[in-house]
Amino acid sequence: MQILVLGGDGYLGWPTALHLSALGHEVAVNDNFARRGYDEEMGVESLIPIVTLDERIAAWREVSSKEIKAYVGDLVDAPFVHQMVGDFRPDTIVHFGEQRAAPYSMIDQAHAVYTQTNNVVGNLNVMYAIADIDRDIHLVKLGTMGEYGQPNIDIEEGWIEIEHKGRTDRLMYPKKPGSFYHLSKVHDSHNIEFGCRIWGLRATDLNQGVVYGADTEQTKLDPRLATRFDYDGVFGTVLNRMVIQAVLGHPLTVYGNGSQTRGLINIVDTVECIRLASETPADPGEFRVFNQMTESLSINQIAETIADEYPGEVRIDHVQNPRVEIYDHYYNVVHTALEGLGLKPTLLSTTLIDHLFDVVERYRDRVDLAAIMPTVRWADTTSELPRTASALAQT
Amino acid sequence: MQILVLGGDGYLGWPTALHLSALGHEVAVNDNFARRGYDEEMGVESLIPIVTLDERIAAWREVSSKEIKAYVGDLVDAPFVHQMVGDFRPDTIVHFGEQRAAPYSMIDQAHAVYTQTNNVVGNLNVMYAIADIDRDIHLVKLGTMGEYGQPNIDIEEGWIEIEHKGRTDRLMYPKKPGSFYHLSKVHDSHNIEFGCRIWGLRATDLNQGVVYGADTEQTKLDPRLATRFDYDGVFGTVLNRMVIQAVLGHPLTVYGNGSQTRGLINIVDTVECIRLASETPADPGEFRVFNQMTESLSINQIAETIADEYPGEVRIDHVQNPRVEIYDHYYNVVHTALEGLGLKPTLLSTTLIDHLFDVVERYRDRVDLAAIMPTVRWADTTSELPRTASALAQT
Repeated sequence: MQILVLGGDGYLGWPTALHLSALGHEVAVNDNFARRGYDEEMGVESLIPIVTLDERIAAWREVSSKEIKAYVGDLVDAPFVHQMVGDFRPDTIVHFGEQRAAPYSMIDQAHAVYTQTNNVVGNLNVMYAIADIDRDIHLVKLGTMGEYGQPNIDIEEGWIEIEHKGRTDRLMYPKKPGSFYHLSKVHDSHNIEFGCRIWGLRATDLNQGVVYGADTEQTKLDPRLATRFDYDGVFGTVLNRMVIQAVLGHPLTVYGNGSQTRGLINIVDTVECIRLASETPADPGEFRVFNQMTESLSINQIAETIADEYPGEVRIDHVQNPRVEIYDHYYNVVHTALEGLGLKPTLLSTTLIDHLFDVVERYRDRVDLAAIMPTVRWADTTSELPRTASALAQT
Repeated sequence: MQILVLGGDGYLGWPTALHLSALGHEVAVNDNFARRGYDEEMGVESLIPIVTLDERIAAWREVSSKEIKAYVGDLVDAPFVHQMVGDFRPDTIVHFGEQRAAPYSMIDQAHAVYTQTNNVVGNLNVMYAIADIDRDIHLVKLGTMGEYGQPNIDIEEGWIEIEHKGRTDRLMYPKKPGSFYHLSKVHDSHNIEFGCRIWGLRATDLNQGVVYGADTEQTKLDPRLATRFDYDGVFGTVLNRMVIQAVLGHPLTVYGNGSQTRGLINIVDTVECIRLASETPADPGEFRVFNQMTESLSINQIAETIADEYPGEVRIDHVQNPRVEIYDHYYNVVHTALEGLGLKPTLLSTTLIDHLFDVVERYRDRVDLAAIMPTVRWADTTSELPRTASALAQT
């Protein structure tokens, strides 16, 4: 298959491109390097050093003798998107190319507007390019479990059969997203479902849980193939961040009472889910939704698992929750579709956590402790970035 | 009350501002004149001539001795919005200030992206201004019945109690919008509901039906107080357009088999609904949704009502439906909340239709027949505008 990976320079886009290439697909990646730009903006860096996209692609050529084509450009640039899709003529477009951090979208008005326009417009441009060039191209779009929020009923895979006043219909599952970022993905989902109805597009929306893990089979082959690993208060996701806190002797920071539950998925399962979705496309006109997660854990359970496993002393601190969310809530997620396609889940294990401790230990000198604490508060309309806030506190 | 009407120069914004001012509220209007710009872009004009906003405001001063303040500027300009809200300090913001035509949003990629960014970003800026300046300001936001689409169950007012696998929750009613324009309103609704949760905003989302009618008690007082009346294939809505077709001896153009049903509302009820919603604000943190319509009619019923009432001969033509929608569908809408606040519905009547015939007769020389037929097709990614298409057909 010809597969175009949008956002192919990012945490998950790059390992996905490698995985698909390793399995024999013709892969191209697109990126505008926005994610590297956010590092500049915030004055932080990936814990694991990453080389440039050109160097990555050259390293993969050396290691595998396989070629990955690169399209550098911005998805909000419609003529660029059209030209890229027309040039590569993919069977499948895997779309990771969006701003993906909830706290980043909640910094202030400008970051909220940037996140929604960047994500929604980029996705619209991809839809239009497909509709113009070849409606048979399968769009595999990354959504998030955070689109659903915390409903008091089971979370189905994107659609729900509703019986109401003696009548029934199958409708899109009602969403209650938790940030302007999560909202941008809800907007995308609605736009894509409409594209399937009017243009007969074939689409798979992957509502992904919180991803953890540092490497995949391919990224391990050469240090130049490594993917990024974020730990800062804006882009660092919970499990990765807590592993770093344990290794550095920093208390594990649990937001609020810690009873809030998240769907999780290992990075090696993410890349495999993308392969499965790509190789078994949605039907023409079908808007298919998979919940791309393998297990549910509360923040307390994650913290306790890490604390139990770490050989040294670990303290768990409950800090004020920067987010607005509910505690002690019901959370039961249906996620059988990807397993139905053949996914064999890699669950959180002590082996994996030990491996992550090793990875962090190797790069511990690169950690900037000032960047770890959350500073972006949902209830405020402007927040300081972590390092700015810590610099201010020191003056 | 201090009430700021966004989009206060438009078809409904202007009569709403007059109605609220007449009833003793302190009213300001905002507009960027985008709607007048669309006329330029498409080479069409309102059937009823309209004067400039300055002239309208001066006429209202003469007629009523009341002052309406004007803020000219674009809602996507965040500093402008912040300054305006801080300067006027409204109790209520009535938000009509969005691109409001489904066909306009479906012309091509640029118009889809324009509609979604203009509407979503403008609304986000209004939310941020409220959250920054005074979270007690009540946001009365215009949505559309078209957000719901055509579900096979009753359409509730924005929220629905769902029983699923033995558990229940009250969730936002699942939407299946019918155009990129309707989608922009769905995106707004989700963003506002989130603002209510995290910032305690108080909001009323008015899902309005298709509005018909040419004037209100105030716009009739002086020709300079008239509001616009659109009949072209892009901005003309069904009932108004068919009245014009009857008067001009043009066949009434029914899209498809005509069994598709719409919620309707008279313009005099629209302005009264806005008053009722404004004077009885939502609670802090409440995202309240009202279905702002008074009756449901199929397109065939609308065409037949007009044909029956018109004194001359009327032909009804079924033309290819430019939209993607279903026929012979279930359509039962709950719309009791506004009546609960005191709305006395003004239903479609022969008196009203006769009055509309008179209005159109008066301005029949202003009609450009070439602008009437639909040319924007949902299934295509680029369409000609009505007058362009007709010019092309003549060459």
